[in-house]
Amino acid sequence: MPKKIRLGIIGGGGDSLIGVLHRVASFINDNYEIVGAVFNPDFEQNLAFAKEIDVPTNRIYKDFDTLVAEELKLPEDERIQVCSVLTPNFLHFPMAKKLLENGFHVICEKPMTMDYEEAKTLQEVHEKSGKVFALTHTYTGYPMVRQMREMIKAGALGKIHKVDARYYQGWINTVIHDPEKRKTVWRLDPAKAGISSCIGDIGVHASNLIEYTTGLKIKSVLCDFNYLYDDNLMDVDGTVLIRMDKHVKGVVRASQVATGEENGLAIAIYGEKGAFRWEQEKPNFLYKMSDTEPLQVYKPGHAYNSELSLNASKIPAGHPEGIFDSMANIYLGAARAIRGEDYNDGEFPTMRDGVRGMNFIESTVASHKQGNVWVELD
Amino acid sequence: MPKKIRLGIIGGGGDSLIGVLHRVASFINDNYEIVGAVFNPDFEQNLAFAKEIDVPTNRIYKDFDTLVAEELKLPEDERIQVCSVLTPNFLHFPMAKKLLENGFHVICEKPMTMDYEEAKTLQEVHEKSGKVFALTHTYTGYPMVRQMREMIKAGALGKIHKVDARYYQGWINTVIHDPEKRKTVWRLDPAKAGISSCIGDIGVHASNLIEYTTGLKIKSVLCDFNYLYDDNLMDVDGTVLIRMDKHVKGVVRASQVATGEENGLAIAIYGEKGAFRWEQEKPNFLYKMSDTEPLQVYKPGHAYNSELSLNASKIPAGHPEGIFDSMANIYLGAARAIRGEDYNDGEFPTMRDGVRGMNFIESTVASHKQGNVWVELD
Amino acid sequence: MPKKIRLGIIGGGGDSLIGVLHRVASFINDNYEIVGAVFNPDFEQNLAFAKEIDVPTNRIYKDFDTLVAEELKLPEDERIQVCSVLTPNFLHFPMAKKLLENGFHVICEKPMTMDYEEAKTLQEVHEKSGKVFALTHTYTGYPMVRQMREMIKAGALGKIHKVDARYYQGWINTVIHDPEKRKTVWRLDPAKAGISSCIGDIGVHASNLIEYTTGLKIKSVLCDFNYLYDDNLMDVDGTVLIRMDKHVKGVVRASQVATGEENGLAIAIYGEKGAFRWEQEKPNFLYKMSDTEPLQVYKPGHAYNSELSLNASKIPAGHPEGIFDSMANIYLGAARAIRGEDYNDGEFPTMRDGVRGMNFIESTVASHKQGNVWVELD
Amino acid sequence: MPKKIRLGIIGGGGDSLIGVLHRVASFINDNYEIVGAVFNPDFEQNLAFAKEIDVPTNRIYKDFDTLVAEELKLPEDERIQVCSVLTPNFLHFPMAKKLLENGFHVICEKPMTMDYEEAKTLQEVHEKSGKVFALTHTYTGYPMVRQMREMIKAGALGKIHKVDARYYQGWINTVIHDPEKRKTVWRLDPAKAGISSCIGDIGVHASNLIEYTTGLKIKSVLCDFNYLYDDNLMDVDGTVLIRMDKHVKGVVRASQVATGEENGLAIAIYGEKGAFRWEQEKPNFLYKMSDTEPLQVYKPGHAYNSELSLNASKIPAGHPEGIFDSMANIYLGAARAIRGEDYNDGEFPTMRDGVRGMNFIESTVASHKQGNVWVELD
Repeated sequence: MPKKIRLGIIGGGGDSLIGVLHRVASFINDNYEIVGAVFNPDFEQNLAFAKEIDVPTNRIYKDFDTLVAEELKLPEDERIQVCSVLTPNFLHFPMAKKLLENGFHVICEKPMTMDYEEAKTLQEVHEKSGKVFALTHTYTGYPMVRQMREMIKAGALGKIHKVDARYYQGWINTVIHDPEKRKTVWRLDPAKAGISSCIGDIGVHASNLIEYTTGLKIKSVLCDFNYLYDDNLMDVDGTVLIRMDKHVKGVVRASQVATGEENGLAIAIYGEKGAFRWEQEKPNFLYKMSDTEPLQVYKPGHAYNSELSLNASKIPAGHPEGIFDSMANIYLGAARAIRGEDYNDGEFPTMRDGVRGMNFIESTVASHKQGNVWVELD
Repeated sequence: MPKKIRLGIIGGGGDSLIGVLHRVASFINDNYEIVGAVFNPDFEQNLAFAKEIDVPTNRIYKDFDTLVAEELKLPEDERIQVCSVLTPNFLHFPMAKKLLENGFHVICEKPMTMDYEEAKTLQEVHEKSGKVFALTHTYTGYPMVRQMREMIKAGALGKIHKVDARYYQGWINTVIHDPEKRKTVWRLDPAKAGISSCIGDIGVHASNLIEYTTGLKIKSVLCDFNYLYDDNLMDVDGTVLIRMDKHVKGVVRASQVATGEENGLAIAIYGEKGAFRWEQEKPNFLYKMSDTEPLQVYKPGHAYNSELSLNASKIPAGHPEGIFDSMANIYLGAARAIRGEDYNDGEFPTMRDGVRGMNFIESTVASHKQGNVWVELD
Repeated sequence: MPKKIRLGIIGGGGDSLIGVLHRVASFINDNYEIVGAVFNPDFEQNLAFAKEIDVPTNRIYKDFDTLVAEELKLPEDERIQVCSVLTPNFLHFPMAKKLLENGFHVICEKPMTMDYEEAKTLQEVHEKSGKVFALTHTYTGYPMVRQMREMIKAGALGKIHKVDARYYQGWINTVIHDPEKRKTVWRLDPAKAGISSCIGDIGVHASNLIEYTTGLKIKSVLCDFNYLYDDNLMDVDGTVLIRMDKHVKGVVRASQVATGEENGLAIAIYGEKGAFRWEQEKPNFLYKMSDTEPLQVYKPGHAYNSELSLNASKIPAGHPEGIFDSMANIYLGAARAIRGEDYNDGEFPTMRDGVRGMNFIESTVASHKQGNVWVELD
Repeated sequence: MPKKIRLGIIGGGGDSLIGVLHRVASFINDNYEIVGAVFNPDFEQNLAFAKEIDVPTNRIYKDFDTLVAEELKLPEDERIQVCSVLTPNFLHFPMAKKLLENGFHVICEKPMTMDYEEAKTLQEVHEKSGKVFALTHTYTGYPMVRQMREMIKAGALGKIHKVDARYYQGWINTVIHDPEKRKTVWRLDPAKAGISSCIGDIGVHASNLIEYTTGLKIKSVLCDFNYLYDDNLMDVDGTVLIRMDKHVKGVVRASQVATGEENGLAIAIYGEKGAFRWEQEKPNFLYKMSDTEPLQVYKPGHAYNSELSLNASKIPAGHPEGIFDSMANIYLGAARAIRGEDYNDGEFPTMRDGVRGMNFIESTVASHKQGNVWVELD
């Protein structure tokens, strides 16, 4: 069994959600250990955060360039092998480039770069480097997305002729209608967010999902954006007609003003012999449709799934994968109690629950054995 | 900010799912570090597993008693503070007891003990110990279960008069109908599984969920089991009439032969002013019903939720909490590539995806800006 | 092709919902014509209602006995062939009995009688009569309920070992908590409603559905009612443990205080090889579960359904059967307009909609043909 | 109370589904009686069908022109008041025109005409006529569609900024891939079906639904069709970008090759303050979304609904409107029995069911009263 992979992290300190997400993900399959980091541009905060999460501080560096320089001085079998790049968008390109050029593998948050030109440059660097580059299009990790891909590859849908993908959110709706508020949102500032807000941030997930699952390439697009207000410079909604091939067409819909939608990524793929539908908000249900057979619902963890899908399921069928988080909440409650902090008595089950449980179980057995009579609990 | 809590683990080595679940849960909120363990009764395997998951081997002990004895010799600020007990059921009681008696906090898998007598004994030990004891009734960690509890406490349902909880699984159905196969299942062996299979293993989750969310106590039960075959000694299905109070009644339904059901834990609570419904297989949706108002659907992460619920959500609304697992699958794929193992090209998004994404985004912008015309991708 | 069947109706006048339901049902397949009736005990109202709904008044009778007496004087090929009995519960038995004894077929609302004794008496009368007696357990008319029955009969589930049926409503919750209000509800008055409110009115639908779909008989029951208040004499909630055979068990749950539930009839049937779930509130979806295969969803109108199910579907797959009602609403709006009554302009689509539609269609064709350009509508 | 309206029917004879749909709809609210018809171009079949469904044959005419001529000779208070036009598409325009010109009200199936030019001509005729013209865009009759309209009118969503409507079917998929089969489908023949198949038949429902519910007008469209095969002349799939106003945009998606989709009409409307979603396949559920409040689900028949919606509900909340059809199936089974035809014993509930029901009810009462003991059924 191989030792854990030595992971470095750039960004993701403090309350950063993306930081939590990457740390937990790195931990879940026991493959990585964090050995170095620049969690924060402020060195004091950087060190404090490292202490807080118990990363040894001797390889916490003052900035990205120092991290690269210092790590290169270490023997290869101690050196960081792979870096997760979780910094603001405009830094993804220069950092990923430098890392690859210096022999590090890279796990990079999206968007990979600020524009297509940078992307092509990075691609060249990557090809020369021979290193691994992983872009965290997170949803491609879902077991049922992988199942879709494998079944399509195996011909389950026949020739595909139509795709329909959507990514609807509503969050910008809470600021866009107020002229003052909308100036404060970095996603609406081209200088910070690049050339596109809605398609750049979320529409691209939908197009990626289409290409990931179907194996087809989008050949051309026709697009209409909505800016909603004349003084707003960034798209907050867009519909994209797509053509994959002369008779293979589709549509990508994305919105940040789809009021009340939360994280509405969904895809439908229609082929000669069948079709698939999947929604990110109910990720454990994959719908396979047919014109002549009953609708089928695939779920993770079953032997009928492909190897690629099964490898992405850690727990038995029927347990939503979020059960890790649920268990984590119980550990969190216990931690607060162990530290002597105030806690709500609903934060974790206690002795009391265990005693009640045994009382319940024994009473049911007694009731049944005595001929289905009432039995009192204590 | 406090240092991490020093965690010991008993059991959960090798491929143990429960081991993964507890390790990940301990990691997710950066509160614990594993400092000692007896992962496996076989010392060689114990050590090997510790190496595999990078736990320092100097505090990997040959057995539970040694762990307790040796840890007690360490200064208090180095010693294991809390132990997770993940061993076979019959060991929960003696281990938890000894740990509490020796001043350790305990996180214990369920069932807490083999019977009610043991449970009451453990409760006495716990009360004397002054230590924290957490029983991992996992589902009480779900944000929407906690929201239900808090809203009921705040009077959202008025006086409760009926509860209906169910835990339906179908897995024993795959062995129970074959006389040979059913002899091989430890859950059907009273010597190994205790006095009850179906109620003991899963029915008790349903009764716990009732008491957790309503704050009411079950006062008496009337129960009918189904053994399905004359030579089967353990219940594989049971329905329990319950009384909480003279006019507050309910039913707990549990089954291991509910063919095709996976992990069908669900609860409905009806009160004078409203009602709740929740299902574990779609844990992010909490239904609040009323006789006179539209049905309401609560979801995690929104400001309208209670503090107890919000504290249990780490990510924005609309992201199923399983997104951690999805991201973890991408890290897993990258790890395989970094190690030079064979991998399926669907295991993680690569440079290619990043380049395609930028191409797509720029093309949509160009299409829109040029007046909604077709733009070719490379 | 046979002539329409001559139908008489007893009860169901005025605003009676059950009256509408039976008249529409008799009309839908062009099998019946209403030739005589006692819609109302008050003869004036009886006549007025007949005029209102255009039933010829010459065979509107002053009471039930007169109807029977006068119809018997008519030649057999003019005489009412079948009577629908829609009167208050306590009249079902004497009327059905007299009709059968006098050679009429009977369609009877439920409950068939006030008690079991009457039921057995009526059964004897029926057997002697040689006439058709149909009891309107309405839900057995749903295509997917019939599909369930036929597939079970054909062995799709193997040996059945568990059933779980529920009928939850919440409407009594709106009156039961007020001591004055609850006295005014006839369902809570044993003199008017018989020996049971909740089980008698709705629980019996659940037990009927079990026997209809499985072909098994309920052999014994153990039941717990909830009256909710000491001065309430009728069950408003009940849970019934049932045994079909030594190892075939189940539960029937019924409630009129399940706050916020509307008409929550549902059934789950578990067998050795598979299982079914169906819910009356989404009647077009039949779920077939298996431990090893993807979940299947059957819908009406498909060739894969049984003949019994297909005969119960009048319209193509995907049209909820409620489309009749939707169309009827448009006819209703048009009727109001034709009569010169005031109407909301949303009550039926008009010329305006037709013109807009053509404008839309032509514009889309023009846009596509001109190379996907914008085309203005008028 | 007004007398019934005298209805004439053109087309819809024999097995015509649209004929059944209109006859039932005309019957449901007791507003119409069919007094004259040309059900079929063949006079013999026309008469036979009239006899079969018991319409008096004296006003069954040999063709449409005769119907108009003969009816005009009748006194006005006997004459047909309104005609339902259910003929092939190309006849809608000339028939509707002649009817309006001769003083008849018209209920017309869609498409109203073959093209926009005809539509505008008909509109002029209609305006001069002063008669009622109803176009049967059926889905606008659904209670929850009407509720959506009324709430939007009342400002529930604030200013609307995005709409997304879809109508996906898969049926042409079963013929389109076979060069021979696809030549046989009249919908794919421009001579018979007009200028558009997919948008003309179903896309227009989606655009109508947008205008009906929002009260906004579509100002321009940009459309891409898919013909799927070079030798296919008619669109079988189309995506339409729409603009309602400078900053109010949307998309209409329609397909007849969306494999496995049945009748997937759906709409989402997003506004500043909230949003609605509705799907025709689950017509009783209207989803109201908000960025800050729990999702709300509106259902028919509740007092919280608007008058327009309540008037479209005939039965209590929770009964899917399809219950009429379910009851009708029971009447159908009884009719077969009454006529002495062979029937499946699942076609209607019988005496046996009534007896069982009473046995069940009495046994549950006995069980409860005797202290929750087992009671045997006969």
